[in-house]
Amino acid sequence: MITKVNIDGFTYIDGGVCAARGFKAGGVHCGLTHAGAIDSGTKNDLAMLVADDECSAAAVYTTNKVKGAPIQVTRQNIADGKARGFIVNSVNANTCNADGIEKAEKMCQLAAKETGLKASDFIVASTGVIGQPLPIEPIEKGIPMLAKSLSYEGNAAAVEAIMTTDTVPKEVAVKFTLGDKECTMGGMLKGSGMIHPNMATTLSFITTDVNIAPEYLKRALSDVIKRTLNMASVDGDTSTNDMCCVMANGLAGNARITSEGEDFGKFTDALFVILLNLARMMARDGEGATKLIECVCTGAEDIRTAQTVAKSVITSSLFKAAMFGEDANWGRILCAVGYADADFDINKVDVSIASAAGKIDVCKNGSGVEFSEEKAKEILKEEEINIFVSIGSGECHAAAWGCDLTYDYVKINGDYRS
Amino acid sequence: MITKVNIDGFTYIDGGVCAARGFKAGGVHCGLTHAGAIDSGTKNDLAMLVADDECSAAAVYTTNKVKGAPIQVTRQNIADGKARGFIVNSVNANTCNADGIEKAEKMCQLAAKETGLKASDFIVASTGVIGQPLPIEPIEKGIPMLAKSLSYEGNAAAVEAIMTTDTVPKEVAVKFTLGDKECTMGGMLKGSGMIHPNMATTLSFITTDVNIAPEYLKRALSDVIKRTLNMASVDGDTSTNDMCCVMANGLAGNARITSEGEDFGKFTDALFVILLNLARMMARDGEGATKLIECVCTGAEDIRTAQTVAKSVITSSLFKAAMFGEDANWGRILCAVGYADADFDINKVDVSIASAAGKIDVCKNGSGVEFSEEKAKEILKEEEINIFVSIGSGECHAAAWGCDLTYDYVKINGDYRS
Repeated sequence: MITKVNIDGFTYIDGGVCAARGFKAGGVHCGLTHAGAIDSGTKNDLAMLVADDECSAAAVYTTNKVKGAPIQVTRQNIADGKARGFIVNSVNANTCNADGIEKAEKMCQLAAKETGLKASDFIVASTGVIGQPLPIEPIEKGIPMLAKSLSYEGNAAAVEAIMTTDTVPKEVAVKFTLGDKECTMGGMLKGSGMIHPNMATTLSFITTDVNIAPEYLKRALSDVIKRTLNMASVDGDTSTNDMCCVMANGLAGNARITSEGEDFGKFTDALFVILLNLARMMARDGEGATKLIECVCTGAEDIRTAQTVAKSVITSSLFKAAMFGEDANWGRILCAVGYADADFDINKVDVSIASAAGKIDVCKNGSGVEFSEEKAKEILKEEEINIFVSIGSGECHAAAWGCDLTYDYVKINGDYRS
Repeated sequence: MITKVNIDGFTYIDGGVCAARGFKAGGVHCGLTHAGAIDSGTKNDLAMLVADDECSAAAVYTTNKVKGAPIQVTRQNIADGKARGFIVNSVNANTCNADGIEKAEKMCQLAAKETGLKASDFIVASTGVIGQPLPIEPIEKGIPMLAKSLSYEGNAAAVEAIMTTDTVPKEVAVKFTLGDKECTMGGMLKGSGMIHPNMATTLSFITTDVNIAPEYLKRALSDVIKRTLNMASVDGDTSTNDMCCVMANGLAGNARITSEGEDFGKFTDALFVILLNLARMMARDGEGATKLIECVCTGAEDIRTAQTVAKSVITSSLFKAAMFGEDANWGRILCAVGYADADFDINKVDVSIASAAGKIDVCKNGSGVEFSEEKAKEILKEEEINIFVSIGSGECHAAAWGCDLTYDYVKINGDYRS
């Protein structure tokens, strides 16, 4: 397991999307499938969450021009900044189908019918193979059972239902205070892949009992997403169904956040902690991955430059393959730094490689420095690798998260039918 | 072997960089190495070419901020638009070393000494591992032997010397006429990798007996490179040492090309044929590749859009892995089309998959259409796969070349030290 990042003022707790009070969740196996699918066994494939009270809601979506039908329906349903629950399936992405919107709306209607809510109260999401009609019958049959199973301890059943080629469930939750009120925020995420070889789709859902106006929820999410999920990459493929949703039900009883004051800052930090941990878990569990790679770029003139450089390193196929081989081939790091679309002096670049086993400098002012290959091997044997790239005298920095490129990535994505 | 593209007015001949009259070439094994190298055997690692007469010369270089020292020296040496020869080594890239420029200049001086030419007459290039000092002694020892070996039939020895993880030598040459003069153009290329896991470095050298002014040689190269090598990708990593050079000695006796008339057009076409074939050979021989993938985007409003879409498809890791698995997972094609940074209506996109075994439509107006999985399997068994993406009603089109993503790509780049 990878380490959790410690940040003052936040305490990790269990419970995922059910950690905050007032959220019931559940997951069932309804038996979704698609052409060419292998048997998905009895893994949960349909998840639901319902809040006891109306929630402020915000979401961000993939920038891909091809957008899954569920995204289009969700966008409409939370246009008023409010939601009561979500319904999510895995196995089939309900994308690039002529009847996609109709099916996504049907999922909301079915959820509404069983819970006594309105269809427009629901966020809907799907993940799985693209371009194959979504069979609605298993969902129709599964939802009554799913609605009955909802509970304040249903987070584990829900997170199982959104997993695809994920090898571990990804959940995190924290406690913190706003004024004298104890608040909670928790989230779950799926990434990266499908049983049938598929998109590295990411779905994430976050719940909190904080009382916050929709506008400020949206603002916090837009800010944090740039520093977390948008800085993580498994294979550079931007999926069609990515979605990250936050629901806040206000049950903590804090003074409603309606401005960018101290409470907004703390709330944003909480969201950062949740999404930072989920992003790191996602990268570590990237398809076929054996290592989490974190690249921190410092000394940049502006944030965009730092982000561009850090992301360029963790997305380089050659560098990722070298990490799999535990080979300190730092020329590939410098190469990726060099082709990043940003403006800086390559002759001022320093590079270090680190892990729990230690740290070595490999490049100073753009040229190689001698280092112990033996020490490098020790460092690269670890499961979490840190790459530090300093690009000059600026004061901005950024981090990005990725994973190594392995035989299993190719196997998962290429070898299934062979 | 992949097929050569037939274009009217051009006849394929043998001879590579020695096909045109007046160019002597050669290659020797001088025994270059670097820290951590496996034994490179007796493969040639040092190539030279000398023209009987002064040549117009032009080159394009990598856009990486990290530029190999040889690039900086070459740029200076051909600033006057003239050159007499080249000296190239494999195994070590002479990049990111404090003494790189000095060593690259030394290579030119050594070549000049043995050939009675000036150091500034030479194009110099290196390819191999980055960030390790280039040992100059093997080159010092090898050059006299190399100079003696130069011959009008030395193309095969030269192309062997620039190969790294290339599995086949890449050469092509054509005959054509300008006015009543028979002209010849030939080229060689190396791509993609190194014995020690390394950059997907590309070097290419083209020679011709056409009489053309340096300015127009440069103009033709700038135009053609955009449609050929710049549209090919093995793994998306832009190397530090990429270089494509053209030398034209004028021995064909054609009226010197000094304007953009008919002869300039024909010359540009010849350069296109050479670089198109070399680009296709490079993509097919991409590290670990088993297939050449060509994506043609049509119906674009402008060339840039068509190029962006075609390139997005052939660089998608997920799509590339699906091609290795011979899986008609067209959702990944549409996904890559959708995240291409270009403006068009995704609901007008059609996709077909073809090869020597036939053609199937898989997507119409952005939604999937039924197709025979059996036929798809047959099509994808072939070694050359064509993806057609039509994005609307524009009149511009572009092609891009790539390869599948395989276990061997990971092995070559990650597994060497394990």
